[in-house]
Amino acid sequence: MASEREQILEEIGRHKKEISSFLDGFLDEWEEEGTQGRWRKDVRKRLQEMVKEGKMVRGTLVVIINKFYNGDHHDSAVKAGAAVELLHTGILMHDDIIDKDLRRRGMKTFQKQYRDLADKEGIEERKHFGISMALAGGDVSFFLGQNVLSSLQVPQDPKSNIQELVFREFSNVGLAEQVDIYSGYSSDEPSEDEILDLYRTKTARYTFSLPMKAGAIMADVDKNERKKLYNIGEKIGTIFQLKDDELGLFGDEEKIGEDIGSDLDEDKKTLHRLKLLERLSDDKEEKVREMLGTDMTDEEREQIKHLIREKNVKSDVHERMEALAEEASEMIEKLDLEEDSKDFLQKMTIFCLEREK
Amino acid sequence: MASEREQILEEIGRHKKEISSFLDGFLDEWEEEGTQGRWRKDVRKRLQEMVKEGKMVRGTLVVIINKFYNGDHHDSAVKAGAAVELLHTGILMHDDIIDKDLRRRGMKTFQKQYRDLADKEGIEERKHFGISMALAGGDVSFFLGQNVLSSLQVPQDPKSNIQELVFREFSNVGLAEQVDIYSGYSSDEPSEDEILDLYRTKTARYTFSLPMKAGAIMADVDKNERKKLYNIGEKIGTIFQLKDDELGLFGDEEKIGEDIGSDLDEDKKTLHRLKLLERLSDDKEEKVREMLGTDMTDEEREQIKHLIREKNVKSDVHERMEALAEEASEMIEKLDLEEDSKDFLQKMTIFCLEREK
Repeated sequence: MASEREQILEEIGRHKKEISSFLDGFLDEWEEEGTQGRWRKDVRKRLQEMVKEGKMVRGTLVVIINKFYNGDHHDSAVKAGAAVELLHTGILMHDDIIDKDLRRRGMKTFQKQYRDLADKEGIEERKHFGISMALAGGDVSFFLGQNVLSSLQVPQDPKSNIQELVFREFSNVGLAEQVDIYSGYSSDEPSEDEILDLYRTKTARYTFSLPMKAGAIMADVDKNERKKLYNIGEKIGTIFQLKDDELGLFGDEEKIGEDIGSDLDEDKKTLHRLKLLERLSDDKEEKVREMLGTDMTDEEREQIKHLIREKNVKSDVHERMEALAEEASEMIEKLDLEEDSKDFLQKMTIFCLEREK
Repeated sequence: MASEREQILEEIGRHKKEISSFLDGFLDEWEEEGTQGRWRKDVRKRLQEMVKEGKMVRGTLVVIINKFYNGDHHDSAVKAGAAVELLHTGILMHDDIIDKDLRRRGMKTFQKQYRDLADKEGIEERKHFGISMALAGGDVSFFLGQNVLSSLQVPQDPKSNIQELVFREFSNVGLAEQVDIYSGYSSDEPSEDEILDLYRTKTARYTFSLPMKAGAIMADVDKNERKKLYNIGEKIGTIFQLKDDELGLFGDEEKIGEDIGSDLDEDKKTLHRLKLLERLSDDKEEKVREMLGTDMTDEEREQIKHLIREKNVKSDVHERMEALAEEASEMIEKLDLEEDSKDFLQKMTIFCLEREK
C-alpha cells in the first residue's frame, strides 16, 4: 500500500506545483495592480500560505481527470483547479468562524491569525476583530477564485458549463453549512438518509464530483461519461467523509494534527453517533446523551469509543464504506478510460478508505 | 426637484420590476431542483425578501446604461443586474455581522432573523447561531449571483469582461471591508487621501462604476467610453458616500430609518471627523476624542454636531461634494449619448447630492 499511496501523492504533488505556480503569478498581479497597499499585501500573503499548505486534492483532480481523457486545455484545467482551491479556502475561512476553530492544516486559522494581530496592536474586541477580518478575507478569496474562473481561455460552452457547475455546487455547500449549523444546535435528530445526504452535499460533491466533472468538461467528454464521474465522486467523497468521522474518533492525534474526540465534545450528528444511540438501551442512551456535547474527560470519551466498538458501530460503518468502495470500483471500470487511469482512480478510492490522516 | 426625483425613481422602479421577476423565476428553479428541503426554502425566502426590499440602484443601473447606449442584450442586462443585486445582498449580510447591525432596509438583518429563530426554537448560543447562519447565507447569495452571471447568453468577450469586472471589483470590496474594519479598531489616523480612497473602493466603484461599465460592456460600447463611465461612477459614488456621512450626522431619523449619530458612537473615520479634529485646538481635540466612540448622550452628540457646523466642516465637505458633482457633470456632457440620457445622469448626480434618505 505504501508505494500506491506514494504514487497517488506524487501525481497530486506534480499538479499541485503547477497550480501553486499559477497562483503565485495571479496573486502577484492582483497585489501590484491595486490600492489599499498594506492590507492587499497582508491578505495576499495569508491566502497564499493557507492555499499552499493544503494537499490541493480538489484542484489537482480537475487537472488529473482532464489529463486522463485527453489533456485538452491543460493550462485552463490548471487555472480552474486554482480557482477551486481559492473558493475552497474561502469556505474554510468561514467554516472556521462557524466552528470556532483555531487550527487548520497545522497552521493558525485566519480568525486566530487576525486575533493575534489584534493582540499585537492593542486592538480591543480581539475576537470580533478576528471574525470580521477572516469573514471579509474569505470573501476576497471567493472573488479572486471567481475572477480566475472567468478568465479561462476555453470555448464558451465548456466555460459556461464549468462555471455553472462550480457556482451551483458551491451554493449547495453554503446551504449545507446552514443545515449543518442548525443540526449542531437543534435537538432534532437527523435520520440516516439526512446524514448521508448532508455528507454528499457538504463534502462529497464538492470535493470529488465537482473537480472530476470539471476536468471532464474541459476535455469535452460527453454528458453520459461526465454523469458517471459525478456519481463516482459522490461515492468516493462519502467514503472520505465517513473516514473523517472514523479518524475523528479513533485516529492518531499526532498524524492528524487535530484534537481527537472533539466531534464527541461538539455532539456532531455523525452516522457513528446515530447508530450508537439506536443500539443502546433507553437508560444507557440517556447516559450517553448526557455526556455528548460536553467537555468530556478522556475517560468518558474512552467509554463512548468502547461502546462504539462493542455495539459493532465502527465495523458496520466501515462495512458501509467498503460497500461504497465496491460500488465506486464497478463504476470506475465502466469509464471510457485507459487501464492506467482507471487504476489510479481505484487506488485513490482505496486510499480514501485506508488513509490514516 | 420633486418631479425630477420621481422621474428617476420611476425609471429605477420599472427595471427593478424586471429584475425582481427574473429573480423570482431563478430562485424558484433553485428551490425546486435540490435537496435540503427546509433550509433551501427558508434561505430562499429570506434572500428574496431582502433583495426586493432594496431600491436596486446597482442592478437597475446596469439595465439603464445598457438601454441608453443601444439596449442590446437587454435580457442579459437584467440578469447581470440581478446577479449584482445577489452579490450585493451577500455583502450586506456579511457587513451586518461585522458591524453588529440588527436593522437594514427597515427589516431585521439576517443575523437578527436567525437569532430570533434560535430564540423560538430554544437554541443556545443564539448570537453565534445568528452569525453563523447569516455568514453561510451570505455565501449562498454570492454563489447564486455568480451562477446567474455565468449563465448570461452573450458573446464570450463581453461575458468574460463583465465577469472579470464584477469579480475584480467585489474582491476589492472584500479588501476594503478589511481596511474599514482595521481602521475602525486601530488608533492609526487615516489621511484624507486614504479616506477618499476607501470611499471609492468601498462604495463608489461597486455602487456606480461597476454597474455603469457592465451595462456599457453589454452594449458593446468602446473602451474609451467605458472608462469615462467608470470615472463618472467614481465621482457620483463618492458624493453618495459623503452624503451618507452627512445624513448620518444631520439626517432625519424618521426618513432614514436608522439611528442618527451612530457614526459618532462608533467613531467612524469619516471625512467630517478628520476635518473637525484638524480644526480644533489641542485641548478641545482631546475632549472630542474622548467623547467619540462612546455611547454618547444626545447632548454630547449635539455638541459635536455644533462644532462640525461651527468649524465649517459641514459646509466645506458639502462644497467638495458640489465640486465632484461639477466634475461629474462635465464628464457626463462628453459622453456619446442622447441628450435625454445625459439629462438622466445629470439628475441622478443631483439626486445623490440632495437626497434626504
